[in-house]
Amino acid sequence: MLDLARIGGLLGECKPGHTLPQDLYNSPEVYRFDLQAVFAGTWLLAGFSCEVASARNYLALTLAGSPVVLTRGMDGVLRGFHNACRHRGAQVCPDGAGRRARLTCPYHQWVYDLEGKLVHARNMQPGFDPAGHGLRPIHVREVAGAIFVCLADEAPAFERFRAELEPLLAPHNLGNAKVAYENTLLERGNWKLVMENARECYHCATGHPELCLTFPIDDLGDTMAQGGNAHYDAFAARVRANGLGIGPYFGPWWQIERFPLKAGHLSLTIDGKLAVNRLMVDADTADIGSLRWAVEPHSFCHSTADQTVYFSAMPIAPNETVVTCKWLVHKDAVEGVDYDVERMTHLWNVTNMQDRDLVENNQRGVNSFGYVPGPYNGADESYVKRFIDFYLDTACRYVSARAGFEP
Amino acid sequence: MLDLARIGGLLGECKPGHTLPQDLYNSPEVYRFDLQAVFAGTWLLAGFSCEVASARNYLALTLAGSPVVLTRGMDGVLRGFHNACRHRGAQVCPDGAGRRARLTCPYHQWVYDLEGKLVHARNMQPGFDPAGHGLRPIHVREVAGAIFVCLADEAPAFERFRAELEPLLAPHNLGNAKVAYENTLLERGNWKLVMENARECYHCATGHPELCLTFPIDDLGDTMAQGGNAHYDAFAARVRANGLGIGPYFGPWWQIERFPLKAGHLSLTIDGKLAVNRLMVDADTADIGSLRWAVEPHSFCHSTADQTVYFSAMPIAPNETVVTCKWLVHKDAVEGVDYDVERMTHLWNVTNMQDRDLVENNQRGVNSFGYVPGPYNGADESYVKRFIDFYLDTACRYVSARAGFEP
Amino acid sequence: MLDLARIGGLLGECKPGHTLPQDLYNSPEVYRFDLQAVFAGTWLLAGFSCEVASARNYLALTLAGSPVVLTRGMDGVLRGFHNACRHRGAQVCPDGAGRRARLTCPYHQWVYDLEGKLVHARNMQPGFDPAGHGLRPIHVREVAGAIFVCLADEAPAFERFRAELEPLLAPHNLGNAKVAYENTLLERGNWKLVMENARECYHCATGHPELCLTFPIDDLGDTMAQGGNAHYDAFAARVRANGLGIGPYFGPWWQIERFPLKAGHLSLTIDGKLAVNRLMVDADTADIGSLRWAVEPHSFCHSTADQTVYFSAMPIAPNETVVTCKWLVHKDAVEGVDYDVERMTHLWNVTNMQDRDLVENNQRGVNSFGYVPGPYNGADESYVKRFIDFYLDTACRYVSARAGFEP
Ligand code: FES
Ligand code: FES
Ligand code: FES
Ligand SMILES: [Fe+3]
Ligand SMILES: [Fe+3]
Ligand SMILES: [Fe+3]
Repeated sequence: MLDLARIGGLLGECKPGHTLPQDLYNSPEVYRFDLQAVFAGTWLLAGFSCEVASARNYLALTLAGSPVVLTRGMDGVLRGFHNACRHRGAQVCPDGAGRRARLTCPYHQWVYDLEGKLVHARNMQPGFDPAGHGLRPIHVREVAGAIFVCLADEAPAFERFRAELEPLLAPHNLGNAKVAYENTLLERGNWKLVMENARECYHCATGHPELCLTFPIDDLGDTMAQGGNAHYDAFAARVRANGLGIGPYFGPWWQIERFPLKAGHLSLTIDGKLAVNRLMVDADTADIGSLRWAVEPHSFCHSTADQTVYFSAMPIAPNETVVTCKWLVHKDAVEGVDYDVERMTHLWNVTNMQDRDLVENNQRGVNSFGYVPGPYNGADESYVKRFIDFYLDTACRYVSARAGFEP
Repeated sequence: MLDLARIGGLLGECKPGHTLPQDLYNSPEVYRFDLQAVFAGTWLLAGFSCEVASARNYLALTLAGSPVVLTRGMDGVLRGFHNACRHRGAQVCPDGAGRRARLTCPYHQWVYDLEGKLVHARNMQPGFDPAGHGLRPIHVREVAGAIFVCLADEAPAFERFRAELEPLLAPHNLGNAKVAYENTLLERGNWKLVMENARECYHCATGHPELCLTFPIDDLGDTMAQGGNAHYDAFAARVRANGLGIGPYFGPWWQIERFPLKAGHLSLTIDGKLAVNRLMVDADTADIGSLRWAVEPHSFCHSTADQTVYFSAMPIAPNETVVTCKWLVHKDAVEGVDYDVERMTHLWNVTNMQDRDLVENNQRGVNSFGYVPGPYNGADESYVKRFIDFYLDTACRYVSARAGFEP
Repeated sequence: MLDLARIGGLLGECKPGHTLPQDLYNSPEVYRFDLQAVFAGTWLLAGFSCEVASARNYLALTLAGSPVVLTRGMDGVLRGFHNACRHRGAQVCPDGAGRRARLTCPYHQWVYDLEGKLVHARNMQPGFDPAGHGLRPIHVREVAGAIFVCLADEAPAFERFRAELEPLLAPHNLGNAKVAYENTLLERGNWKLVMENARECYHCATGHPELCLTFPIDDLGDTMAQGGNAHYDAFAARVRANGLGIGPYFGPWWQIERFPLKAGHLSLTIDGKLAVNRLMVDADTADIGSLRWAVEPHSFCHSTADQTVYFSAMPIAPNETVVTCKWLVHKDAVEGVDYDVERMTHLWNVTNMQDRDLVENNQRGVNSFGYVPGPYNGADESYVKRFIDFYLDTACRYVSARAGFEP
């Protein structure tokens, strides 16, 4: 029951290079639109192959309020489904990971196989067609140990993204990873404010004293790292010598690039030392900087030699967003021996909480009767503009396909 | 401020024999529509005569967010009113039962008699007409100790329902009952999901191990019990010998039928033994099965020889419903002697909590982007279809009477 | 995204001399309308000069969900701004009082001077115009130590109000006051029900036993005090002899009048004795009654010889309102010596909590399906009618200016 004329009108008011009009940050109707038009229409970075590694494993999770389940069949193939029973719509698998030969709905025990086929529906009437009532599939792709899903009937093109990500990410060996830790944080702000925050470091110098110890905030601009200096050139030579690509690659909904940390630092930790002794990358040095790979509209990852950190923002209300973080390490790394969870997670935990405060303060100001869209910083907020451009493109395409006018 | 065109459009999308479209289960606008079109337009089972037994007793309660008060006048007649002062609308009686000669508004002390007449309005201006400012009446009916109310100006026909219920319910002697216990449960699901759950036992075999000890789930179908076997025939002969009717009676908004429990069981308790030693029914045996009487869209009761258990679901938010249960026993039954509250309530308490979990899981799945209406089971969900048919009939009638089109 | 046609329709249903239609008290859309049309378009009593007394002081607060900041410049002039950064809209100053030479946004450190001018915006692109990105001003007026703000682009006329308030309030010497205590109370009722409650004493006799000890509830009517009796005449002579005006003055959005307390009482306290030994008024007696000055749609104050008590209601949700109270005393009064906070605040604290219960009960009744607008009491609720008239005038003017029709 979306009023696309009204929403299209709002989209039409957007001013290039500026933050969005107020209603786009706090109206309940826009919130429902965003879920449908943006989250349900694009590729999302749902998780990692290691979370559903073997035949019969499943992983159930809720994306933008919508439950999905990923299964690994006996054929080793990963498949995805809307996690809603075709009988009366109950959630078939509880959120979380597990192992099952069949998926049985907890309500009336309709049974689906791992390919989504309905194999048993107790006592249904003659004329009922099981073949028409399998779990509805979603699009799934695995790339070098990362899982991407799209909930739309027709998914956007994926192959250029795969071609750009795979060579850079593969050496990080996520296929042999495990999730060493995972947590969530509630932010009382619109999801777009969370993502604008996550897409710039203009606030880092004062906002993130800990992150700035290792993160090269002075070098950020149109890409994550500026070449043409000795530090960068040494980094580039070193990683190339280890067969690691650099990028950068920018697509309509992704950014992929390897960049150097501040000199002498090996990982995104408080002290720049490794978080994990057991490396994930097979290289003759751990000094390979970080591979940042980000997927609009909700996520980014940093892959250093020792770990991959995953960040994903999911809207749960017009002014509430849940951020999920995961820390992936080599599956043979031993907690307490090769890594310490507290030490490994400290930097991103403090950084995320600092960002939460900034986002919530941003939301308060955006609610002002006096709020007007303001200009992005051309250099320091170029990734925010990418995010906003993606949001507006996606939203306008949705409206024009359905409402017959161009916002 | 309901947009009936939009809601009518949704109603028009409903597919016979299938669950409802997603918006009907979770849109805030449909929630407000349901209160107005469905709850405020039909007969509701509000409570029991014994809760407002004598002259000067009152019972105040909130139905679908709307406060009402029932009073027993000096003439013994039960009357009902919207519990909103005709001055500035304050709630006149606090929710609960009590005894008063007059109803005095707590805000500015306007005084109403038990027939709703405004008898004092302090210091009102000349020209103010007290006769035009009595409490607004609601429709009230008493049937064999049960109280039915309708909040609409014009109530649906009642007499066929009375004619069918009264003979079957009267022997249960609710006029001499008391409420031995009452509790409420919050379910985070749309009220229609709560009621669909309450109208079928397709989920009982796995969902309600305790209930299945006494409840004849294998015999359920188009009615609560299938004849043509020795167990049923013996039950039928026994209850008829005691002058007890069986039914079944199905009306547009009710179902009434007596059915046998599993062999050897006398009451809906964990062990099938009586919950109360003092019987309510005057019969030569307690082995009379259960009289199920249900009123759309919100309630059902089970009357066994010893007790009547009442279940009522009330929406409080789009995805929140409060379930109220009452256990009625003979008014002379003594707690601790004739019945034990813990033992008496155990079966329905566990059953309701199991249903709460099923409903909340159902709601999560219905929220899926991939949710599509699914087919009801012709045999096991025939009562769910009755509920849905009642809902759609009532909703469509409301829309067509006001918006001038047939959804 | 307000639907002014719908809201205008509701306004058109209002019946003179009666409470409002139900939707005006509980629809989410009307709530958003009220913020925009009423709170953002009128003069609000935001606080007191003593809260931002000297050059470089600031006071930040949230009015109707919208953050504002008041600053005192080096020139001693008080200015007000929307407290939303012109970059990405973050709240620049946290709510509360403080002292700063510049206002620096906590997000990316854009710096504004105390006149709102943007004086630094780190690293912004060539072509960015700082002059066009100062904090957006709001209208501010100081009257005898009270601060009034208006968030609209064009503020309603102020001068007649100033001319009427200033002579009566000036002797209370608020310029030399301090806020001795401040608290807030959440009321689960629409803000208009809170204000209707605050604008009448028809409920005082039974609702406020403590307040009635000192408050002359029997004398209330078209003004706060009826003349023509010995008590009033003596009061009038006494205050005039001290050069104190009486009024009354009624404007479209204000009421100002001095009235006597019950005989023998000096202040609005439980026992009628002074709350503060150090007086604020320079008079030969403390027996000067109370100056009530009230500003629609949200506030009233009582200024007795010893203190000024401030009451302000702010909507935070359709059915939630926060009431803020402040107690102002002479700045040289010493806590524990000249006044005791518990004793000083007791009367209004109990009164406010009694009103909270009345308002919440009122809201419950107004939610009834049977609610219909009821008649105000001509004498005892004349100030409620003023409030409602102001509300409807303001709301209708907003609609007719924007939607092109008269509700
Ligand atoms: S909802 Fe899944 S089996 Fe009924
Ligand atoms: S609201 Fe009931 S007397 Fe005023
Ligand atoms: S939002 Fe204030 S400096 Fe960026
Ligand atoms: Fe940050
Ligand atoms: Fe059940
Ligand atoms: Fe009061």
